[in-house]
Amino acid sequence: MKLTNTAITGDFFKKYYSLIINELMPYQWDVLNDKTDAAEKSHAIENIKIAAGASKGEFSGMLFQDSDFAKWLEALGYCLQKGDLQNFRAKADEIINYIAQAQEADGYFNTYFQLTAPERKFTNLHEAHELYCAGHLIEAAAAYYEATKNEQVLSIAQKLADLICSRFGEEPGQIRGYAGHQEIELALIKLYELTNNENYLKTACFFLDERGAEPNFFIEEAKKRGGFSEWSKRTERYPSDFTYNQAHKRVREQFEAKGHAVRAVYMYTAMAEAARLTNDATLLNACEKLFDNITQKQMYITGGIGQTNHGEAFTYDYDLPNDINYSETCASIGLIFFAHSMLKMNKNSKYADTIELALYNTVLSSVQTDGKRYFYVNPMEAVPENNQNPARAHVKAVRQKWHVCACCPPNLARLLASLEKYIYMWDDNILYINQYISSVANFESDSGHFKVEMQSGFPNSGEVSVCVKSFAGEAVALRIPAWCKNYTFTMSGNAIKPEIKDGYAYVKIPDIKGNFDASTDTFDILRVNFIMEPEFIYANTAVRADAGKTCVKRGPLVYCLEETDNIHNLHNLSVNTKSDLILKPGNIGGFDFYAITADGFAESASDKGELYTSNEPIREDMKLNFVPYFLWGNRQRGEMICWVRR
Amino acid sequence: MKLTNTAITGDFFKKYYSLIINELMPYQWDVLNDKTDAAEKSHAIENIKIAAGASKGEFSGMLFQDSDFAKWLEALGYCLQKGDLQNFRAKADEIINYIAQAQEADGYFNTYFQLTAPERKFTNLHEAHELYCAGHLIEAAAAYYEATKNEQVLSIAQKLADLICSRFGEEPGQIRGYAGHQEIELALIKLYELTNNENYLKTACFFLDERGAEPNFFIEEAKKRGGFSEWSKRTERYPSDFTYNQAHKRVREQFEAKGHAVRAVYMYTAMAEAARLTNDATLLNACEKLFDNITQKQMYITGGIGQTNHGEAFTYDYDLPNDINYSETCASIGLIFFAHSMLKMNKNSKYADTIELALYNTVLSSVQTDGKRYFYVNPMEAVPENNQNPARAHVKAVRQKWHVCACCPPNLARLLASLEKYIYMWDDNILYINQYISSVANFESDSGHFKVEMQSGFPNSGEVSVCVKSFAGEAVALRIPAWCKNYTFTMSGNAIKPEIKDGYAYVKIPDIKGNFDASTDTFDILRVNFIMEPEFIYANTAVRADAGKTCVKRGPLVYCLEETDNIHNLHNLSVNTKSDLILKPGNIGGFDFYAITADGFAESASDKGELYTSNEPIREDMKLNFVPYFLWGNRQRGEMICWVRR
Repeated sequence: MKLTNTAITGDFFKKYYSLIINELMPYQWDVLNDKTDAAEKSHAIENIKIAAGASKGEFSGMLFQDSDFAKWLEALGYCLQKGDLQNFRAKADEIINYIAQAQEADGYFNTYFQLTAPERKFTNLHEAHELYCAGHLIEAAAAYYEATKNEQVLSIAQKLADLICSRFGEEPGQIRGYAGHQEIELALIKLYELTNNENYLKTACFFLDERGAEPNFFIEEAKKRGGFSEWSKRTERYPSDFTYNQAHKRVREQFEAKGHAVRAVYMYTAMAEAARLTNDATLLNACEKLFDNITQKQMYITGGIGQTNHGEAFTYDYDLPNDINYSETCASIGLIFFAHSMLKMNKNSKYADTIELALYNTVLSSVQTDGKRYFYVNPMEAVPENNQNPARAHVKAVRQKWHVCACCPPNLARLLASLEKYIYMWDDNILYINQYISSVANFESDSGHFKVEMQSGFPNSGEVSVCVKSFAGEAVALRIPAWCKNYTFTMSGNAIKPEIKDGYAYVKIPDIKGNFDASTDTFDILRVNFIMEPEFIYANTAVRADAGKTCVKRGPLVYCLEETDNIHNLHNLSVNTKSDLILKPGNIGGFDFYAITADGFAESASDKGELYTSNEPIREDMKLNFVPYFLWGNRQRGEMICWVRR
Repeated sequence: MKLTNTAITGDFFKKYYSLIINELMPYQWDVLNDKTDAAEKSHAIENIKIAAGASKGEFSGMLFQDSDFAKWLEALGYCLQKGDLQNFRAKADEIINYIAQAQEADGYFNTYFQLTAPERKFTNLHEAHELYCAGHLIEAAAAYYEATKNEQVLSIAQKLADLICSRFGEEPGQIRGYAGHQEIELALIKLYELTNNENYLKTACFFLDERGAEPNFFIEEAKKRGGFSEWSKRTERYPSDFTYNQAHKRVREQFEAKGHAVRAVYMYTAMAEAARLTNDATLLNACEKLFDNITQKQMYITGGIGQTNHGEAFTYDYDLPNDINYSETCASIGLIFFAHSMLKMNKNSKYADTIELALYNTVLSSVQTDGKRYFYVNPMEAVPENNQNPARAHVKAVRQKWHVCACCPPNLARLLASLEKYIYMWDDNILYINQYISSVANFESDSGHFKVEMQSGFPNSGEVSVCVKSFAGEAVALRIPAWCKNYTFTMSGNAIKPEIKDGYAYVKIPDIKGNFDASTDTFDILRVNFIMEPEFIYANTAVRADAGKTCVKRGPLVYCLEETDNIHNLHNLSVNTKSDLILKPGNIGGFDFYAITADGFAESASDKGELYTSNEPIREDMKLNFVPYFLWGNRQRGEMICWVRR
C-alpha cells in the first residue's frame, strides 16, 4: 500500500503554505534574478546563464551560490506536485535548459568552478561546497521531476550523479574523499529511491563509510593543493579540527552530536536512510545514540539545536545558554529530516514528537506572519540592545529581510511545501498517524485503495477525528504526544482503549468492526481528544542556564513572555508555579491562539539605582501574559524570554 | 609636606609582596632569559642583546616583546626602592647597558623594528605597539632611576622621550598621530614629573588632544603604507572601527567607557593626570563621567571590567554577564591607576573605594596563594567544562602558569610592589588615609616632618588604629568605606564625631588637642572600628545576569561559593536572604579569613532526568558555605559562583 497523495486541509498550515507560494517563492525568484532592491545581488541565475553561454559576465556570489536556485527549484517541485505555482513552470524549465547547456559532457556542473577555476574541480572538497551544490541540484531534480516528468532535469541529475559515482570511491584512480558540507549523501539516496540505480546508494554509503578515516582526507587533500584555500585564495595552514565537519571519527563511532549543526543533521539523516536501505545495525546504533544525545541533552525546549554561533555548532551536554544560542532554522529543519528517517525504521513516538516540537516552535517562529521576514538564528531570549555585546551580535531581536547567505528561507519553503509527507506512514499493514495536521490522503496498492480524512484542532486544541474509507489494513496507530497526560479515544460515542506501544495507540480493525457504515464503505474510526493542559516545564537540573526557571507549554506549543504584553526588563519577572494558568483567545497576524495568564511578581529597585546595593529589590504582584513562541516578534519590537524565574 | 617613604607592616600584604619578590620576579627573570621550561620562549632579553650587537640571531616574539622586560624592570625598581632584590640590580644594569648600546643616535629603541623592519619605524602606530613599548620603558626607567640613581637608564628614557616629542606634534614635518595602545601618555607625564621637562607634558597632552580627530589618523596612516599590516604582513583593508582604541571621538567627548578595557583605563588615567597638571576642566569632566560610567554601570561586583573577550572590551551599560566576562587583571589594575589619579584631584571616597574593591577582589584573586599561577581572565563563575563552549573558551577554571602574552603577572608585580603609594595622600595640609593597610610612613617638608603608624585588621576586621608623631597638619581625613554602615571613632577611649564630607571623616587637630603625649610627641590620634557586617548584595534590577540573585560581601571582600565546600552544579543552590550569615575562621594557603555560612536549599531532579519535565525539582535544605573570592581556586579544581539564586 502506497501513499499516492495527501492534501492538507486545515487553515493553520494552509496559511503558512500560502506565505510560501504567495510571498517566499515569488520573492526568492526575484532575488535569484537580481530583481529586488537587496543591497547585494544574488547573481545565481545569471551565473547559470553565463555558464550556458547565454549571457556574458563573470561569476558572482558565494562558492555555493548554485544551491540557492536548486533549493528554490526543489520547493517549486513540491508546490507543482500540489498544482500550485504553475506560472513558474515555464520559467523553471528555461533555467533547467540553461543548466543542461552548461553541463559538461562528463556530467560536471558547478558554475563557480566552471567560470572561475575549472582547473581546481574536485580539489577542495573540504571548503568548496562542490558536492553540496550537486546534492541540492539532485534533490531539486527529483522533486521537480516527480511533479512535471521533465526528463531533462532528471537527466541532468543522473549525469551529475554518474560523474560523482565514477570519480569517488575506493577503486584506483578514484578520489577517496568526501564532502566538507554533507548533503550529497542524502541526495544520492533520494535519486536511488527514484531510479533504483544501486550505484547511487553505493556511493552515498562510500561517503559515509570513508568519513573520519585516517589519515584524514581533508589534510591529504590540502597537502595536494599546497594549502591553497578557496575562500581566502591564499595558502593557509592545513586544517586540523574536523569536528566541525563530523570527520573527527568514523560515523559509526559518533555517539554525541558535535560540530556544525546543519552538516551534522544532514549527515545523520543520510546515515539513517542508509541504515534502513542496507539494514545496517551499527549505523542504526550510532543514529539512535545521536538522536537521543541531541534530544535529551543538547536541544532547546523549542526544538532548536546548535548552541553556539562559533561554527554554528553543538557544544556539549546540558549546555543550553539562552542568550548566546544559535538554533538556526535550517538545523531544526534538518533535525526534522533526521527524526523522519528514524521514524521510518522505528515507530517510536519520540521521533514524531521531535518533529512536532521543532515544527511548531523553532521552524514556524522563523517566519513573520506576513511571510516577509525570517530568523536564521532563533532566539531563546531577545533583548534589542543585547547584540551590542559581540558574543550576542548574531542574536537579532527582529526578523531579517533576506540574507546574502540565503539558506534558511528556501529550506523553510522546502519543508512547508512538502509537509504532508510527515503526517502518515504505511508500514507492515498499519496506518501510522504521526502528525495531527488536518488532511485527506489516498493510499493505493494492487489489491485496492483507501482514503483517510483527518480533522485536527492542533496546535490550539487536541481534538482530532479520523475517518477512513475502504480501509484494508490491520490497525490505525496514532501517536500519543509526549506532552499529553490525559486523552480519550471514542468511536461512535463509545470509549475504546487501544493498546499502547512505544507511544503509539494501536486501534485494531477487529476492535472496531461494528462501526462500519456499509452505505458509505467508511469506518467512523476515531475521535480522539489529546487533552492540552497548559503546564509549567522545568529543565533538567544539569542545565545551568535554566536553573530556577520555568517555561510554560501547552500541547505542542512553547510559550514566551513579550515586552508588549508585560514590562520592560522581562528578567525582573517571576512566575508562581502554583498559580493557575488561564487561557484567553487571541489573534496575531491572522493566527488564532490561546494566550496564557499566570500570577507572578515584578522586582524593581528599592533605592536610587546604585549598581550594587544591600537593599533587596521590591516585589510587586502582577499578572504575567504568555503568548505562543511561534508568534513572537510580530508586534512591537521588544524583549522576549522563554524561561522565566520562578 | 611630602611623603618620603612608606613601609607596609601588616602580614597580609607582606605575604603578597613576598610572592612577588620570591616567586614572580625571579620566575619572570628566567622567562625573559628563556631559562624556563615554557613551551614558547620569551626571547625578550635576547632581542635586546641582538639589537646591541652582543648576540647573533633574529628577533623573536610579539611586536611588543620589549615591554615584558620593561614591566619587570619597573617592578624591580619598586622592590629596590624598598631595599629588596638587590641581587638583581647588577643583572638589570647589564641589560640597561645593552639597551644603551642598542639605542640609536636619535634616541630610537625598539628591537622589533630595529631588527626586522627599520624602514617601517613609526609607520604603523595603530597596530605596532611602538609607542606602547616606549612608554613602558620610560615608566621603568623612572622607577629604576628613583631606586638606584642609575643615570644611564634615565638618559635612555630621556633620549627616547625627546625623540618622540620631536617626531610627534602639530608642527610641519611632525607626525600628527597617536598610539594604537595608549601608554606613552602616562609615561611621558611620569617623566615630566621626574624631570620637570615641559616638553613631555606637552606631547602627552598632544596625544590626548589629537585622538579622535577627523580624518581619522589610523586610516590616513594605513593609506600611506598601502594597507600593509604589521601583524599579518599582508595588505589588509583600511581599519574602520576605532572604538576599540578609544579613537572614535575626541577624548573630551568620551563619557561612556568603550573599547579595549586596558587601553581605555590607561588613557583615562593619563587624561586625569593631564587634567590635574594643566587644570583642564573639560578633561576632568570627561574623566568624572567615564569613572562614574564604569563604576556605576559597567563594573563587576569584584571590581572587574571589560565584559567581553571580543576585543577584551567594555560592552554597554548594565551588561554584566557572569559566564562570558573578561575582567582582565590588567584592566582592574588600570582602573586602580585611574581611580588613584582622580583621587589626587578630588577627595571623594568613591575613588578609594574602587581601588579597595578592585584590589582585594579581582587583583588579589588573580594570583594563586603560592604565587606560581595567574588568572588573566578573572571568572565571575567557573565551571571546568564550560569552556567547551567557544563563547567561554577564554574563561579558565584554574589559574595558568604563564602566558606568551605575559601582561598580567608583571602588571600585578608593578602594582603590589608599589602598593604603599595608595595608602596616604597629603593635600592642602590634610593627611588623607585612603587605604587601611598596616604601615609606617614618613612625611617631610622644609618646616618639619611627621610619622604615621597605622595598624589595620583589613580585610578581615575593620579595626584600625592610627598614631601620628609630630603631626603639624590641620586634620587627618579617613575614608569611610562605602560598605560600612556603622563605625566608631574613639580617642583615648572617648568617642568622637568627626565631620564627614564626600565619604571622608575629617578629624581636626583642635578637636584632639587634649590627646597629646608630650613625652613621646605623639597624638594617639584614633581608633576606628569600621564594623564589617556580612551582607547580601543585590545588583541593580537593570542587570539581567544577576536578576533573582544575590552576592555575599563582608567589608571589602566579595564572597563566592566553591564546589569543594558545597555541591556539584552550584547553580542548583539558592540562599535565603533572611538567613543569618555566620562567620567561621578559616585558612587557605596561609591566608586567614572568615568563611560565611547561610541557610539555603539545593534543587535536584524529581524524575528520571529528562531534559524537560513537568515535575518541579525537589528542594532540600542545606547550609551554603561562602569563602572570600580572592582565595577561590586554591584547593580542588571545581566550580565557583559569585552570584547565587535567592
